[in-house]
Amino acid sequence: MVNSMTEAVGVGMLGLGVVGSGVARALRDKAATIGQRVGRPVELRGVLVRDPERQRDVEGVSLTRDPRAVLDDPRVQIVVEVMGGEEPAHAYIRRAISAGKHIVTANKEVMAKHGPEIVSDAARCGLDVAYEASVGGGIPVIGPFKLDLLANDISSLSAIINGTTNYIITRMSQAGLDFGSALREAQDAGYAEADPRNDIEGIDAAYKLSILATLAFHARVHPNDVYREGIGGLEPSDFRYARELGYATPLLAIGKREPEGLELRVHPAFVPRGSMLANVDGVFTAVQVEGDLIGRILFYGRGAGAGPTSSAVVADVIDLAQRIGAGPVRPSLAPTDANIRLRAVSDVRTRYYLRLVSADRPGVIATVAGILGERSISLSSVLQKEDVPLEEGGRYAEIVFMTHHAQEAAVQEALEQIRRLEVVPRIGSLIRVED
Amino acid sequence: MVNSMTEAVGVGMLGLGVVGSGVARALRDKAATIGQRVGRPVELRGVLVRDPERQRDVEGVSLTRDPRAVLDDPRVQIVVEVMGGEEPAHAYIRRAISAGKHIVTANKEVMAKHGPEIVSDAARCGLDVAYEASVGGGIPVIGPFKLDLLANDISSLSAIINGTTNYIITRMSQAGLDFGSALREAQDAGYAEADPRNDIEGIDAAYKLSILATLAFHARVHPNDVYREGIGGLEPSDFRYARELGYATPLLAIGKREPEGLELRVHPAFVPRGSMLANVDGVFTAVQVEGDLIGRILFYGRGAGAGPTSSAVVADVIDLAQRIGAGPVRPSLAPTDANIRLRAVSDVRTRYYLRLVSADRPGVIATVAGILGERSISLSSVLQKEDVPLEEGGRYAEIVFMTHHAQEAAVQEALEQIRRLEVVPRIGSLIRVED
Repeated sequence: MVNSMTEAVGVGMLGLGVVGSGVARALRDKAATIGQRVGRPVELRGVLVRDPERQRDVEGVSLTRDPRAVLDDPRVQIVVEVMGGEEPAHAYIRRAISAGKHIVTANKEVMAKHGPEIVSDAARCGLDVAYEASVGGGIPVIGPFKLDLLANDISSLSAIINGTTNYIITRMSQAGLDFGSALREAQDAGYAEADPRNDIEGIDAAYKLSILATLAFHARVHPNDVYREGIGGLEPSDFRYARELGYATPLLAIGKREPEGLELRVHPAFVPRGSMLANVDGVFTAVQVEGDLIGRILFYGRGAGAGPTSSAVVADVIDLAQRIGAGPVRPSLAPTDANIRLRAVSDVRTRYYLRLVSADRPGVIATVAGILGERSISLSSVLQKEDVPLEEGGRYAEIVFMTHHAQEAAVQEALEQIRRLEVVPRIGSLIRVED
Repeated sequence: MVNSMTEAVGVGMLGLGVVGSGVARALRDKAATIGQRVGRPVELRGVLVRDPERQRDVEGVSLTRDPRAVLDDPRVQIVVEVMGGEEPAHAYIRRAISAGKHIVTANKEVMAKHGPEIVSDAARCGLDVAYEASVGGGIPVIGPFKLDLLANDISSLSAIINGTTNYIITRMSQAGLDFGSALREAQDAGYAEADPRNDIEGIDAAYKLSILATLAFHARVHPNDVYREGIGGLEPSDFRYARELGYATPLLAIGKREPEGLELRVHPAFVPRGSMLANVDGVFTAVQVEGDLIGRILFYGRGAGAGPTSSAVVADVIDLAQRIGAGPVRPSLAPTDANIRLRAVSDVRTRYYLRLVSADRPGVIATVAGILGERSISLSSVLQKEDVPLEEGGRYAEIVFMTHHAQEAAVQEALEQIRRLEVVPRIGSLIRVED
């Protein structure tokens, strides 16, 4: 505990990669602003790195490869964790709390999997855990749930929360690239990693949705609670049909409170062209929230990168440093509702876009419409494009069905039956429509 | 000062109109959530109204027409001001501070004209003034400047910040209505007041821009510092040309930090169709901010109304009530830079849309292009529509000029000269293009 109001607040940091270097630079370059706001200086006193000998563009910072040198330093009151990954980051955060340090972290995986437990443990020690940087880079999304939106009952979240997949989707949609080419472009531009599974399979988005849903619905949401589909199955023709029908096709993270339970899902979705979410392009991200008092609001900005992420980390450091100076820190609340009821994805009701690759025979539309109709799935429109060349050879017709609201289970049953039709060699895509 | 952590926090309110009633309902209906968050109950202990006898849909609240009964009540720690208008709201806020009360206000006029002085005076007494509800309804826009964006040097603000004018503009643009019809529709829908000048002349937007710019640029910005044009001069044809050229035409509030000084202006502007700002329709509002670390971010939502505004007021009450319980409140900072340098609007450089109503004679385009060229204003495109019927009778040609970047002073000089041309009976519109 720091007693004097003139003594500096000490910060230790775990990790000095892209984000860590950004934070170190911001703490140095903005020292005057930060000191003025906090009421006393904030000093970076030690950084855990893998190789302290390596040349870096951050000078005058004490580097160590010994975690204890940061975690047990009595001159450190706030530990900033920007290593990423579940372990050893999680273990280090726990040890820092045991050693009486407040935590600032940008780690979505740790916060999604262990956040509520970490926050509770810290609170028992009178410590706080700040994690604005874990979702949406520098866009203030965690803070609003902790304060600005508190008077609201939140009914839904819809977020384009992974910049890498949004970049790939934007390139597929605007330049007509196929998935593989768009992915390679994202890798070349440094937006996608060599192993891109975390992004393209929606795992990263599910982490972030878990964190947001835990805050929004005051319930303990785990990443495993989230139904998940990636973007690898999208084809250029889906984007063409989407445009024709008046939609964009982002990877959407959805959280909805329904009477039957919480809906939590990450998958590509059609959203109307004129909506704010349809205009989130490239590496930009957006979080849309609906509450009873506030109606619909949306936060938009770059969701990753050294600048935006260090903007959020430094803001959290300032907030904690201020509160350390002003008596005991009142920690954040843990979720009140330990047992949530999840709504199975099979119970979800929405509209659907279904693209079939079919032999161009009379009667196919009638057969498929019949199968759908037997399960009370009615159609709002049907598009047929003839003579489409197929990768697997031959030329076929593509038929697109847009349904009215239907139950997922019924749609999946119908799909099983359609899959067995001889005249339908391939089901192109099934994409949910979120209005 | 409240000493016990179990004693309730007392709130007094000035005004019980649409917003005040919303706040009273929210404090009652959300009492459990609020109490849990604050750590003790928050009670509405008295409300100043004009007529305590009038029937209202808020029960169990003590009403008075005597301001002292609220301002001097020792059981009140927080005064919520939701009367609106400069006086007596301003005087009551001052008296409440003298009486040792923290302030929560939704009053943009008072905060724009007197905010920094009120905040400083309150700070000297260890009191805080919260005003999230004064700009952007429930959208968190004040809070982010106080904390989340603190590590950033803000270079610009662009905001669609008045829902009434945005509704009128949306109706003109999407339904082709003229200004008078769209205004009447907004009045019938309850979005515009009987005397709509505050909205349509951009006065309300200038108040809000002053508040945001004061925070963003750490400078004392007064509403009189803001250059202002309203929306009364826009005609249906401007929206048609805008669409053809790929733009939307909101009333934009702009704050920019340039080497020569601060640019502060409110006027209709062309913004590119694909941008987030171009998709803010109806009574929705949005604030876009650019900072050195965070890049471009945007906040979007309903900027007014009982629900959104009471969402912000209640969040401010919760924040203050929490801090009252945790030792002395550390008040907000006043702007550090008392003397700002303003950039005159005549020095602004931007692109321009100029619509002329002209006799359809050969040579008009050449003459106008010559006048512009003499002042180094070059053209990016020219559109000519022939045979346009005029309100004032006769049929003329309409000619639209889009310029490259040019200085406002040069454009205004050219306009003076064009106005004197016999072949140009009327200058339709001059609209700045913000890319």
